[in-house]
Parts: sequence; C-alpha cells; structure tokens
Amino acid sequence: MPSTTIAEHAAPTRRLTAKGEATRARIVEAASALVFLHGVTRTGVEDVQREAGVSASQLYHYFGDKQTLMRAVIAHQTVEVLAAQGPELDALDSFEALDRWRDGLVALQRARHCAGGCPIGSIAAEIAEDDPDARADLVDSFEQWEAPLRSGLATMRDRGALRKDADTDRLALALLAALQGGLVLTQLRRTTLPLETAIDASLELIRSYRA
Amino acid sequence: MPSTTIAEHAAPTRRLTAKGEATRARIVEAASALVFLHGVTRTGVEDVQREAGVSASQLYHYFGDKQTLMRAVIAHQTVEVLAAQGPELDALDSFEALDRWRDGLVALQRARHCAGGCPIGSIAAEIAEDDPDARADLVDSFEQWEAPLRSGLATMRDRGALRKDADTDRLALALLAALQGGLVLTQLRRTTLPLETAIDASLELIRSYRA
Repeated sequence: MPSTTIAEHAAPTRRLTAKGEATRARIVEAASALVFLHGVTRTGVEDVQREAGVSASQLYHYFGDKQTLMRAVIAHQTVEVLAAQGPELDALDSFEALDRWRDGLVALQRARHCAGGCPIGSIAAEIAEDDPDARADLVDSFEQWEAPLRSGLATMRDRGALRKDADTDRLALALLAALQGGLVLTQLRRTTLPLETAIDASLELIRSYRA
Repeated sequence: MPSTTIAEHAAPTRRLTAKGEATRARIVEAASALVFLHGVTRTGVEDVQREAGVSASQLYHYFGDKQTLMRAVIAHQTVEVLAAQGPELDALDSFEALDRWRDGLVALQRARHCAGGCPIGSIAAEIAEDDPDARADLVDSFEQWEAPLRSGLATMRDRGALRKDADTDRLALALLAALQGGLVLTQLRRTTLPLETAIDASLELIRSYRA
C-alpha cells in the first residue's frame, strides 16, 4: 500500500453525502475514545462498531481495514490535541502567552484526573515499531505541534523579547519533549506535578534568554 | 488480588532450583524482548512460550497469568534500564558525570537505531489505564530512576557546585521528564536529536545554577 499523507486521512478521500460524513465522523470519534482509554491493540473493530452504532459493512465501507481506521484516529486526535490548546497555540509569542498556554495544559490534565496521557504520544509508544505508516503520520502530528512553538519563540526573538543568540528551534523542541515526558509521568503518578515541573523548567530556560 | 511490591516481582516468590531459576529468567527475558518490540498487548503467551522454548504448563508454573508475567517484565526491564546507564547513574554528582551519562544515553539510542523508545516508558503509555497494579509498579520504576538523579544533584548543591537556592528535586524531575519526552520523539523521528536537545536543555538549566 502506498504511503499517504496525514491530511488525506483527516478527511474522507471520496465525496460523501452529509449523512455519510456524519457516520464517518461518528466512527472516528468512537474509535478515538476507545483508543484513548484502552490503546490501539485492545480496541477491536467490533468495539468500535458497537460504540458508534454501525454495522460491520458500514465500518468496512468507510475504512477498509483497522489500519486505515487507526490512521484516521491519529489524524482526528492530532486535530483535537491542537484544538484543545486553543487559538493561543498559534500566538505563543510572549511570556504571558506561554504562561497561559501552560496553565491550560495543566488544567486539561486536572480535568481528566491525569488519566490517558497524551492522546497521540500514547499511540506513538504503542505502535511506532509495528506500523511504519502510522509512525510517519505521528511524525507529521508532532511537527504540527512543534511548528507553532517554534514560530512563537522565533517571533519573540525577532521582536527583541529574546536575545539574538537564543536558538529558538532548539528551545521549542526541548519544550515539546518536556511536555511529552511530563505527560507520561503525570499519567503514571496521577498528579500534574511532573507536567508542571517539566514545562516550568523549559520556560525557565527560555526566560534565561530574555533580552 | 492484593497489590504486591515490584521487588516481589523482580525475584521469584518461591524458592526455585538453579534450573528453575534459569528457566524462569529465560521466560522473563523472552517476554521482555517481545514486549520491547511489539508492546504488551501484541505479545501473546504462545509467542513467549515459543521464544523461550518452554511449554504452556511450564509458563503457567512460573507465572500463573499474563498479568503476573508482565509485572515480572516491568521489574526486569527496570533493572535493565538502570543497569544500561552504568554505575555512573549512582554518582551523577558533577557536571562531568552528568555529561558522560548523557552521552551514554544517546549512544545507546544510536546503537538501537532509535527504535523501541524507553522500555518502561512504552509499557507505561500502553497499559497505565488498564492495569492499576502494573501502573503502581511503573511508578516505583520511575522513582528508582529519579532517586539517583535527585541525590546526585543534591550532592552537587551540598558540595557547593550548585547554588543553595537550586531546587534539586525539581531539576531532577524535569531532567527525567525531558529524557522521557526526548525518547518518545527520538523513537518517532529515528534520530537522536530530540533526546540530545531535551537532555541538553535540562542540563543547561542545571548549569544556570552553578555556584
């Protein structure tokens, strides 16, 4: 099977009726919820059928196999993860904006009682070795997450809020990694302390480049 | 089933003959290798039997069910992860030691072609929600990892290498989180750059507290 881009998986590849679109979306949402709770492997297509209230033939009509469905889940969860961070994600160009964004991430984990971890990071840990296409999709997902961090910090440097010698690409990548690792430990320990500590340490390093 | 500590799972709970010990160890090693490659859910007990060259009844004799075997895998992989970092892990009490430890972690990922991610972090992401006993074991595992980071940095502060106001517990937790997140991104992107960037950013923050 030729590799396709994540954008093709986010949207239906054939033109669907409004009803078809709604059914497809219901399937992806049901699958995403199950994967978030139980992981990819423990989510059976029968579970998805039941949760979405569709037949096996309907599921097959929209997603030929489980792998195709899982790639749609990755695309869907990527959109959700980015949306959950609010429009602020695209304007992380001041220390105040970074602090608000950090508070939003922590509040979200608190609301979830620290369960589930990162919806895309967890999928990555589970299937990165067994599904190269899904891994490629996840690389794209994290690039979509890292890009606004990078551009926000670059804007801060260009505006003179950060010193000229601040390597903002490096700081953005370190911030994303800290966030991911913080989420793993927050999920395990059921407290937001690791997430807060990891992000705050990254932000402290960024602040050390204040112009 | 009452919860047991990770130490009880690391070692056999009954006294075994030398041959029994060897068989048990072979099973745990085979299961650990399969879980590292394919995850917990995709590792069937039949796969473990075949890989270890044991019968179903032998497997059952040592590990009553898959969950018990997986807890032994977590205990085994925790010992392996800590051992892979060398005796230096228990003496991370200078900037030079921290740099050598960092280089060792990066070299290990390079040797693995960045595949597999963290042997215990990956298990965490997969089963944290579905197996509370395993989650408790993993909390212990990460505590065993964090403790030497914490005590190394505290020693540096006590010796005057770090300023008195350095919150070494916080810096140690941030370093562990950075490492975990760096491993997730390194596994996905198949380059050690995220791991290096994440750890180096943490070490840069630690250096900013140099006395």
